[in-house]
Amino acid sequence: MEKNNNIDQLAIDSIRLLCAEEIDQAKSGHPGMAIGAAPILHTLYTRIINATPKNDKWYNRDRFVLSAGHGSSLIYTILHLCGFSITKEDLKKFRSLGSITPGHPECGVTPGIDATTGPLGQGVAQGVGIALGEEYLHAKYPDIINHYTYVLCGDGDIQEGLCQEAISLAGHLGLSKLIVLYDSNDVQLDGRVDACNSEDTKNKYQSMGWEYDLVIDGNNCDDIEKAILKAQRNHKPTFIEVKTVIGYGRKDQGTAKVHGAPLPHDEVLEMRKAFGGEPFYIPQEVYDYYSSTFLKRGEESYNKWNNKINKCNKDILDEFNHIMNDDFMIDYDKELTKFSLDCNQPTRKSGGIVLNEISNLHPGVLGGSADLASSTMAQCQGGMFTKENRLGRNICFGVREHAMAAICNGLALHQLRPFCSSFFAFSDYLKPAVRMSALTKLPVIYIFSHDSIAVGEDGPTHHPIEHLTMLRSIPNVNVIRPCDANETREAYIIAMQSKTTPTVLVLSRQTLPTLIEKEKTAVNKGAYIVSKEKGKTIDGILIASGSELVITLKAKEILESKGLSIRVVSMPSTYLFDQQSNEYKEEILPSYVSRKMVIEMSEGAHYYKYVGQFGLVYGIQKFGKSAPGPVIIENYGFTPEKIVDEFLKLEKVDFIRYVK
Amino acid sequence: MEKNNNIDQLAIDSIRLLCAEEIDQAKSGHPGMAIGAAPILHTLYTRIINATPKNDKWYNRDRFVLSAGHGSSLIYTILHLCGFSITKEDLKKFRSLGSITPGHPECGVTPGIDATTGPLGQGVAQGVGIALGEEYLHAKYPDIINHYTYVLCGDGDIQEGLCQEAISLAGHLGLSKLIVLYDSNDVQLDGRVDACNSEDTKNKYQSMGWEYDLVIDGNNCDDIEKAILKAQRNHKPTFIEVKTVIGYGRKDQGTAKVHGAPLPHDEVLEMRKAFGGEPFYIPQEVYDYYSSTFLKRGEESYNKWNNKINKCNKDILDEFNHIMNDDFMIDYDKELTKFSLDCNQPTRKSGGIVLNEISNLHPGVLGGSADLASSTMAQCQGGMFTKENRLGRNICFGVREHAMAAICNGLALHQLRPFCSSFFAFSDYLKPAVRMSALTKLPVIYIFSHDSIAVGEDGPTHHPIEHLTMLRSIPNVNVIRPCDANETREAYIIAMQSKTTPTVLVLSRQTLPTLIEKEKTAVNKGAYIVSKEKGKTIDGILIASGSELVITLKAKEILESKGLSIRVVSMPSTYLFDQQSNEYKEEILPSYVSRKMVIEMSEGAHYYKYVGQFGLVYGIQKFGKSAPGPVIIENYGFTPEKIVDEFLKLEKVDFIRYVK
Repeated sequence: MEKNNNIDQLAIDSIRLLCAEEIDQAKSGHPGMAIGAAPILHTLYTRIINATPKNDKWYNRDRFVLSAGHGSSLIYTILHLCGFSITKEDLKKFRSLGSITPGHPECGVTPGIDATTGPLGQGVAQGVGIALGEEYLHAKYPDIINHYTYVLCGDGDIQEGLCQEAISLAGHLGLSKLIVLYDSNDVQLDGRVDACNSEDTKNKYQSMGWEYDLVIDGNNCDDIEKAILKAQRNHKPTFIEVKTVIGYGRKDQGTAKVHGAPLPHDEVLEMRKAFGGEPFYIPQEVYDYYSSTFLKRGEESYNKWNNKINKCNKDILDEFNHIMNDDFMIDYDKELTKFSLDCNQPTRKSGGIVLNEISNLHPGVLGGSADLASSTMAQCQGGMFTKENRLGRNICFGVREHAMAAICNGLALHQLRPFCSSFFAFSDYLKPAVRMSALTKLPVIYIFSHDSIAVGEDGPTHHPIEHLTMLRSIPNVNVIRPCDANETREAYIIAMQSKTTPTVLVLSRQTLPTLIEKEKTAVNKGAYIVSKEKGKTIDGILIASGSELVITLKAKEILESKGLSIRVVSMPSTYLFDQQSNEYKEEILPSYVSRKMVIEMSEGAHYYKYVGQFGLVYGIQKFGKSAPGPVIIENYGFTPEKIVDEFLKLEKVDFIRYVK
Repeated sequence: MEKNNNIDQLAIDSIRLLCAEEIDQAKSGHPGMAIGAAPILHTLYTRIINATPKNDKWYNRDRFVLSAGHGSSLIYTILHLCGFSITKEDLKKFRSLGSITPGHPECGVTPGIDATTGPLGQGVAQGVGIALGEEYLHAKYPDIINHYTYVLCGDGDIQEGLCQEAISLAGHLGLSKLIVLYDSNDVQLDGRVDACNSEDTKNKYQSMGWEYDLVIDGNNCDDIEKAILKAQRNHKPTFIEVKTVIGYGRKDQGTAKVHGAPLPHDEVLEMRKAFGGEPFYIPQEVYDYYSSTFLKRGEESYNKWNNKINKCNKDILDEFNHIMNDDFMIDYDKELTKFSLDCNQPTRKSGGIVLNEISNLHPGVLGGSADLASSTMAQCQGGMFTKENRLGRNICFGVREHAMAAICNGLALHQLRPFCSSFFAFSDYLKPAVRMSALTKLPVIYIFSHDSIAVGEDGPTHHPIEHLTMLRSIPNVNVIRPCDANETREAYIIAMQSKTTPTVLVLSRQTLPTLIEKEKTAVNKGAYIVSKEKGKTIDGILIASGSELVITLKAKEILESKGLSIRVVSMPSTYLFDQQSNEYKEEILPSYVSRKMVIEMSEGAHYYKYVGQFGLVYGIQKFGKSAPGPVIIENYGFTPEKIVDEFLKLEKVDFIRYVK
């Protein structure tokens, strides 16, 4: 076995030292993994990865995901050497306000970072999504897309259930261009890995359809390279366990002490003294080596690719570019089915029809369900995505909600337009990945049917109560709960037009009438008047979303028969309404009207700001019960009569303002 | 190999038919699994399980968890035969309002149901928790507790990451009295299992430290029995794959068609016609057989156990009973450390001190962390729980947040008082299990440190923003965010005194002063005045929780220097405040004060109902940024000066009420 040559050692020493110095300067960070895994990333970037700072968005670059995101100092240092726009000054600003070198890697913030990571397991699952996207695009555009996806993960990652779901699916789908490097250093935050884990890694990953390989000496670049080159030829995804020593070479190497706190300042000074040079100094030979390896190889690949695609069929290339830029000029409003007022069907069904049409118009749309496609009805064109049919656009995720969502994030990172679906109550299982969509600004479409206690017999475990609140509370998430087929249709258009915001569509299991003519929906405003007050003044405003709008309109009729002048507002999206001008908000919900009442079969926390302290959020603050839908709806008081009763209890208050 | 004898077949036929009839009557349910797995549960209850309807809470009964909760009709039918208080009338009310036979099993609703299940994976993980609790109690009280835990799961369960986390940990801990029966029928909701899964089950479970066994004919009771008896003798947990046919014997057997919708009504009528008797008829021989097997064996075991424990040392038995009834008469307020006003430390540290003391007083307290114990500081007495030390009370869960929480639910189902901890941002990962705690009324203690953007450098992935809202929105969850050491202390007391409500403790990473004398905290009221207004009238009320209280008190000082009369309210728990009388609420937050302002570094949706439409929720509606804690706090405007500025922008409004 060859030894690493001198330049590798010099580079690795430089990288390790720089990581220590960055963390020392920030007085915060995770030196252990950065130091321990330095040879892995050094090898990967100098000998393997095809990418180039000339175009850090190059569609056919190899992707790299640092799933163990706490090792951020390591990837920043490597990307600096690779010539991406990360200067030494940026490295010195590690973990400081406004820097491009934040505590954990953030895609969109730092050139060369392909995925936002930090919460463990998300990176591996996003890597699976990227590799899945690559397979689809490679099948569709074999001359344009053909690259590998590399992931570096740690012990924490693979203990996460999310990661295990993603690994299992990747094995099943045979994503052979996915290579996961496992930084196996036997140590995690609380101590030794064997205190909480004693799996037979090789057998476990093989049992899930992966090739397994072991690199015994994680400091040996040649061994690492050989394992990766072998993995590239496998017909399965490959899991390479690389045995490393956390904090290699440091006083506390091999212990949890070096995991999450800076090395002692004196030790960093000693390291520098032994190495030579000023703080943050990297020998020119190291830069030269990266120039002659990563930079040269990447630029050549990039130029070759550019030459190649210029010879492609123009229509094919155009379509590809439209997918990558998501700039098809599709007039969805013109193209999509308009639902007439006699259409009675669940919004999940309307949504399924619309999604199917959208997928016919936009070849970047693909997705699937966590074993509930037949219930959520969210299916698109193109058949199933399988080992045999890489052009399939429906992914059978299995009962793996969390991986499904994280994989969709990976698909979106590859410029596709993914959707996924489940029952709304199970949005719980994938919430961490919705957060990642929102943080990374990925316009993933989440489709949740069975959206309230109206689910009925399946009972409280299957009744969403607090889920609208949970999802509405995440920054940059547009939760839309349409009241009928035409609002559903508009909701989908908004979801497709979104570039940086994930959309959550919350749809009914039960049949609903079509209440609003296609031309009259205004989901894009978040809330709008669907039934005007009869009188010149307003005695009250009833606000509803989703399936509650129809009973609210009936409540209005009863109140009007009592001589009251009532306005009904449909509010499919609090997110969009919050973005409207104060004038518009005041127009829809005038502040002088004290009797405002929201009707929604949910916990409803986000409505208090609209109803004021004399209004009422008529929601549900307890769990559901198992009973047929109509029975449970009545039992929980969601009838026009009960709404009327509650409305009539509200006080009419006049506000007189004093100028201060 | 012996064939099932006639009575087994008659019983199984009766059970299958009854399940079909229950579902037919309810017009809703999942016949496929109930029919397919009937022989498994029949064998388990007639030949294996020790339990008795004489005392369905018998502490040493074998536990059974139906993780595939959609098979509820099957377990209800079996429990009916076993003599538990489930009548034929109850079976006829399957899935109807107020029945004890809801759509999915609910512990506490139905006698003989040991765990609430439905959301897939939760049951397996709760089973692991029950088995873990059994090991602890068996080690502590070897003469009193010694039983098995059985779980029946399906394909959906084992695809869930949650389940895989729990399986991995159970293998690591060698929970040998845990036996999981896998109803392996090759079909799930969307179709065949092989469309989304192609694992080598045997190797996978063996690689995670489990024994694996296979029963090829899931209709053969003798084979099922043999496998279970063998499993009982294993030194590892055992995973028994039982090959069954979904909807066995029905027209659409072996397909997804029989999974989630009732069989055709005519087919059920035909089944009954072929079997004979009126609908819901069960031959007396079947009842007799259950009497002579399950009932006889269970009653004998129960009597034997009663005789045995009566000979136990009285002190030991007393302690055991106190754990089981959670009725230690501990005066926590007297016993626990009181923090003086010069105590400056993070609330996570104060919490760690308190928890440690509590565990010294209450031997039922045990728990652990998802690899963050050294950061959350939530550790108790008794060393680590390991294969070798079953008396350890600190469980090293690994980076398996979701399983950690679900396992705690299992521990609580075994009458223990579990706690678990992680960073607050990662509460996302275990939210579905918090919901299960709340629904099942289990007083699990969730401890989350690193509770805001004050976490600092780790950046947005590690900054909780919406998490308080997420958890506050779940029914029956008490979220407490204490402002200092003494509020933390009281919060723990409340958590320990809770019998049916899980408590979420949200603690700071950063050092905080002790603001409130031990005698003056009133966390139990949810909110209380910590600094009275100076004047006779109130110009404004500032409301804060957690680390924001100290800056809010400083803001008050500034406002007072401007001649304003300001009240400061500490609101550690919106859950507890909402339960107070209207008089108390009005006393603390008088409605005539229009200028109410909440200061909390969170999304804050639940505060709008307190501040009214002229008040302000001063929170955070965007993601965090990577920077040192103090820098990010200032950057996000959480300084006394900025709070003052915002307060001064509020309008003073008088409300004049008209009597209607």
